[in-house]
Amino acid sequence: MGSIIKQLAVLGSTGSIGQQTLEVVRAFPHRFRIIGLAASKNLDLLAKQVNEFKPRFVYSQDREALSHLNIECDFLPLEEMASYPQVDTVVIAVSGRSGLLPTVAAVKAGKNVALANKESLVMAGEIIINEAKLNKAQILPVDSEHSAIWQCLKGENQKAAQLILTASGGPFRHFSPAQLSEVTVEQALEHPSWQMGRKVTIDSATLMNKGLEVIEAHWLFDMPSDNIRVLIHAQSIIHSLVEFIDGSVKAQLSYPDMRLPIQYALSYPERLPNPELPRLNWDSLSRLTFEQPDFSRFPCLNLAIEAGRKGGTYPAVLCAADEVAVELFLSQRIKFTDIAYLVKQTLEQHQPVAHPTLEEILAADAWAREKVTQLTTEGNPC
Amino acid sequence: MGSIIKQLAVLGSTGSIGQQTLEVVRAFPHRFRIIGLAASKNLDLLAKQVNEFKPRFVYSQDREALSHLNIECDFLPLEEMASYPQVDTVVIAVSGRSGLLPTVAAVKAGKNVALANKESLVMAGEIIINEAKLNKAQILPVDSEHSAIWQCLKGENQKAAQLILTASGGPFRHFSPAQLSEVTVEQALEHPSWQMGRKVTIDSATLMNKGLEVIEAHWLFDMPSDNIRVLIHAQSIIHSLVEFIDGSVKAQLSYPDMRLPIQYALSYPERLPNPELPRLNWDSLSRLTFEQPDFSRFPCLNLAIEAGRKGGTYPAVLCAADEVAVELFLSQRIKFTDIAYLVKQTLEQHQPVAHPTLEEILAADAWAREKVTQLTTEGNPC
Repeated sequence: MGSIIKQLAVLGSTGSIGQQTLEVVRAFPHRFRIIGLAASKNLDLLAKQVNEFKPRFVYSQDREALSHLNIECDFLPLEEMASYPQVDTVVIAVSGRSGLLPTVAAVKAGKNVALANKESLVMAGEIIINEAKLNKAQILPVDSEHSAIWQCLKGENQKAAQLILTASGGPFRHFSPAQLSEVTVEQALEHPSWQMGRKVTIDSATLMNKGLEVIEAHWLFDMPSDNIRVLIHAQSIIHSLVEFIDGSVKAQLSYPDMRLPIQYALSYPERLPNPELPRLNWDSLSRLTFEQPDFSRFPCLNLAIEAGRKGGTYPAVLCAADEVAVELFLSQRIKFTDIAYLVKQTLEQHQPVAHPTLEEILAADAWAREKVTQLTTEGNPC
Repeated sequence: MGSIIKQLAVLGSTGSIGQQTLEVVRAFPHRFRIIGLAASKNLDLLAKQVNEFKPRFVYSQDREALSHLNIECDFLPLEEMASYPQVDTVVIAVSGRSGLLPTVAAVKAGKNVALANKESLVMAGEIIINEAKLNKAQILPVDSEHSAIWQCLKGENQKAAQLILTASGGPFRHFSPAQLSEVTVEQALEHPSWQMGRKVTIDSATLMNKGLEVIEAHWLFDMPSDNIRVLIHAQSIIHSLVEFIDGSVKAQLSYPDMRLPIQYALSYPERLPNPELPRLNWDSLSRLTFEQPDFSRFPCLNLAIEAGRKGGTYPAVLCAADEVAVELFLSQRIKFTDIAYLVKQTLEQHQPVAHPTLEEILAADAWAREKVTQLTTEGNPC
């Protein structure tokens, strides 16, 4: 336990989750203090954040540019910030692979880890969960689905029977295969219910995001993937559900606003009243719908679930291949449907390692990135 | 704490909740043992239950008839059974006013009280809650709505912001005022989603039941009635919801089957796997709808909420007037819409007592029963 004011390091402070984390901190100046801020490249915003929150430490990928900003705090590398003694809670809000090493550093240091980066658990779930147990680190899920499950499990001391992850279904829920192959970047970036970063928005449109969340849920809640199901719920009001051994089901509901799960991770085990968070309006909320996901039109979902089931280095390869493929799609070099194709090809050609070390995971990651590039330059997919 | 096998007294064992309680006990012979059974009049069924569950004690209103049944267990009056030392949990499954004194006896004896009788809390909530605190008795709600709220509150250590009780809306949800005045007993006894006793089925059709539940929730969860709302949810899948101070909402879901909340009250804090309880089927469950209750077509709802708000002897008068009015409707002596009329008239003519004693509550109850009879014989309502 730290002081009554929780001291936070926010890694990825200029991204979508990072900015919303700072909104929550701004709402509770007597509960949270920022002692470290880290961002990759958006130095203008980082400088503003430093001015407002006055952290002791700052990090940016571009240390040189940082030094020109006349910022009055010390530079600290990402992993040192994640394990710095005075930090109570580390918010891992960086996206993609970059979250892995800071997450490992934070759990090894026994921190509370507010984890918004799903790739770290997907790539190295076994290592992170084992290190967390060993070092009494607590992983506080920030993803809305995992936060929902975590809230539903609160006070329940028995293992759940089933976790039900809801998915909005993305903007292409009712697209035909032909329509899917013609999807533009602009279309894919318009998520129907959530405002998120670009990578996760594309992953939501392919349902890869939901597949990654199944793997994440497997690790976070020690649940076999056969007992985790995905349910399309277009309104994004029920964020996930838990079925217990007696058949009783609990659900967590709220408007789609990431500040709620962020705040819950920061304030846990307490809840804090925040007038800026919207309350469900039952005068207008008249209908919640559910449907089964279509695995054939959205093959990424099954690719992820299967990679998670096989384990070893497969999930790392999945993540890396997807990250590169999404970048290629965003730069308009491949079609929307090529994302699944490239990930599938890469997974099929992978020589897996069981119970991999961090080095083996990073090697698999590098191999997969290389492989996707190679598959693309061969002119293969399109 | 009792032994590992929980010893139960089931008061009202031949009614709907009583029979379903015994179904749960039958499914877990190594967890629950029946040591007392009590029924009012259905002696044939009581004799069968005694033969199967072999309790030590039995009670019936008709002791004389009981003595002819050749039952090999001792007679014990209701309140003595509710407070008998070896009893761990008392299931109060009697309906109406008859639940009051056994409930008071059980809480005074510090028992776990699985409470299916809502009238006792509505009539004497203040006394029962105070006695429960004083004697460390635990009230375990059996009503599906209160069980839902209780499950959602599990592990949450802060006061909730709002309780949202769902209501199926009953069979006459879309009836016009004219149609409502012509409702037959047969129509009113056909509840769209729940199989229940006759009294509570009629109360569901008038929404009086939901009003009583608002008062019950007020006492069970120490929540001002202004922070308890009613939401019509025709599918009866979400049994109630809790909104927390951060705006997060939790809901409890299951098919409408009273065995689940009964079992939860008996097994609490554990959950038990029971293959006989249905699990939600997400392949067929595609839509949950919500609408606001119509207070003008269903005046009983507001009569109850208002009586609860005023407190004192008003809720006891409400209960008694409703009990008599429902009996009059079931025997076809008044119209469906007369139930609300009679309850309203009775409440208006009542001289309330604040913080009443049990005697004052019983006197108000007797006064209200007399008043409804008087109003009816005057030929007033119809």
